[in-house]
Amino acid sequence: MAKSISFARGAPSLDIVDVKGLQEAAAQAFKADPGGMTAYGTAIGYPPLREWIAERHQVAPEQVIVTNGSMQADAFLFDALVDSGDSVVVERPTYDRTLLSLRNRGADVRMVELEPDGIDVAALERVLAAGASPKLAHIIPNFQNPAGYTLSAEKRTRLLELARNHEFTIFEDDPYVALRFEGAPLPTMLSMDQDDTVVYASSFSKTVCPGIRVGYLVGPAEVIARVVKIATTTYISPNMVAQAIVHQFCLSGALERSIENVRDALRERANTLCAALERELPDARFVKPVGGYFLWVDLPRGADVGALFEAAAERGVAFVKGADFVLEGAGSSLRLAYSGVTPEEIEEGIKRLAEAYHQVCDAEDVNAA
Amino acid sequence: MAKSISFARGAPSLDIVDVKGLQEAAAQAFKADPGGMTAYGTAIGYPPLREWIAERHQVAPEQVIVTNGSMQADAFLFDALVDSGDSVVVERPTYDRTLLSLRNRGADVRMVELEPDGIDVAALERVLAAGASPKLAHIIPNFQNPAGYTLSAEKRTRLLELARNHEFTIFEDDPYVALRFEGAPLPTMLSMDQDDTVVYASSFSKTVCPGIRVGYLVGPAEVIARVVKIATTTYISPNMVAQAIVHQFCLSGALERSIENVRDALRERANTLCAALERELPDARFVKPVGGYFLWVDLPRGADVGALFEAAAERGVAFVKGADFVLEGAGSSLRLAYSGVTPEEIEEGIKRLAEAYHQVCDAEDVNAA
Repeated sequence: MAKSISFARGAPSLDIVDVKGLQEAAAQAFKADPGGMTAYGTAIGYPPLREWIAERHQVAPEQVIVTNGSMQADAFLFDALVDSGDSVVVERPTYDRTLLSLRNRGADVRMVELEPDGIDVAALERVLAAGASPKLAHIIPNFQNPAGYTLSAEKRTRLLELARNHEFTIFEDDPYVALRFEGAPLPTMLSMDQDDTVVYASSFSKTVCPGIRVGYLVGPAEVIARVVKIATTTYISPNMVAQAIVHQFCLSGALERSIENVRDALRERANTLCAALERELPDARFVKPVGGYFLWVDLPRGADVGALFEAAAERGVAFVKGADFVLEGAGSSLRLAYSGVTPEEIEEGIKRLAEAYHQVCDAEDVNAA
Repeated sequence: MAKSISFARGAPSLDIVDVKGLQEAAAQAFKADPGGMTAYGTAIGYPPLREWIAERHQVAPEQVIVTNGSMQADAFLFDALVDSGDSVVVERPTYDRTLLSLRNRGADVRMVELEPDGIDVAALERVLAAGASPKLAHIIPNFQNPAGYTLSAEKRTRLLELARNHEFTIFEDDPYVALRFEGAPLPTMLSMDQDDTVVYASSFSKTVCPGIRVGYLVGPAEVIARVVKIATTTYISPNMVAQAIVHQFCLSGALERSIENVRDALRERANTLCAALERELPDARFVKPVGGYFLWVDLPRGADVGALFEAAAERGVAFVKGADFVLEGAGSSLRLAYSGVTPEEIEEGIKRLAEAYHQVCDAEDVNAA
């Protein structure tokens, strides 16, 4: 079989990881603070990195906890805020791991449709008016996973109003924010928040590397204190060695260089992917991403993405089915991650995907459905 | 106030951490496997380290999961095996964080007295005969935290029999095993187990450093698979960078050198501590440790360790009250950790502790109580 090409995993290819910068950061960290980074520390995280993050978000250090990746931060936050039976709003589609994590906690998950400019706030208002009183609304504002869409400024403002009026917490889950390759960045809801309604999460997985497992939460000091308590009981402290390495990576300027490098590569990959889809698979409907890792494809209604998945696998091409990101439906949609594939692999992969499509989804049948 | 001296925390002083070895291991890791250590990986841990651990314990890699510290491993194991209301046997006294973690899960915690040669198996048999059917027995076999005691070979055998007959899992929590500074090591219950009744935990916190946060579980493949599933949902994968550094630290021979260095230092500290107690505080009753970090002191019945704690704090000396390691009682006992203090600090600290003791626990009153 031909070399396999994976559009499945939201992870960077090694060529956009600054291994040399990491190696230097590690050497520097052991030199600068051997005591701090080899000792247990506490659940707040490595204090110098916590302060660096606090400064970047213009908040007090007490509003920050640095964790072993942001998934772990999500888990702590859900432990702190979501009890079994609590209603939680998420976007439809949304990140499959978040969906699983909430369902494992017995949350009453309410999916609200995601539009190309972010969650359908009118639909959310109807859900709220009908009596739902969610504890939390989980929102991925920039280059959403899986859809690649970005929440507009207007909708950010409206969400904050709704959160204030209906007393729910906005969980602003923002790991891709630095990866914008087109247009001006929008303010975070965290920075717009006047009412302590936002808990913000981000990560160094996409700007340093995933294997370093450093993420964080920013929020009201009282919420962060509760999360710190849960974290202490769970693992005493997160990885001090890794966090000290990230801190040196930030201080040295490697972070900004790495972000620029990653952005350039992602821009090229997204452009290549969109052009290849337009050329090879004109039935595919999608919004061209302006940042991040993902592109969401809607195929004509009736197209069987389950069958496409199998036919693509036979040709050595992997993606994630749209159905994995919703509670039901999305049977004619799929997620393509372009973060881990080179432009050449994208060209070849989309050619094979189109072949698979033509095999399983005969165009006339689909249109007739 | 004089320089403060802490016998409180079970953590090494920086002089017994091989910072240079760590720095070299980090440089080597980034050279040897940049792709593996910077990528997400999976919840099983960094595969080469997992294999190294499997080989060391002579088990299949499928029987091992490498986690962010062994506390995190404990939490996953409890999530997998312990439901609210389940009965769990622990030693009395035991590690305070384990106690808290089990109580937070709503476990019905049964403390069974710890003797200088390990848990009182006759008392455990009585508990079992009376109808308790524990899911789990948590045992710290070597140089127990907080008591410093070690489980005898006979009792290891007997515990395995009881576990088989009463169908409970032995959670053999063994972070100090490598730190024996006197006598021959005893076989682990894991290695003696014929019936898949043991889940074993250990860590590199005491042999590499705590800030690296690398621990692991070894157990039946089926139990480990359940733990891996929980870990995946919680954090995708543990710290690959840290685990790759530990792996290189193991390969290079730095681990064996570090263990030897730590043992030598601990032996000297334990000797100094015991001599100082005998000289300065003859009322103290204790068993001389043959490994590990801790020494447990029983003061004469009626001695108020709460008051001693305050009086010692006024003199800049910290320890942990015995009461923190039990559900009730132990009011005349305390734990002294000698891992983080130099011999000079131990001499000075015990002098001050004895002063505090003479201030708050007038000998005649105590003996009369």
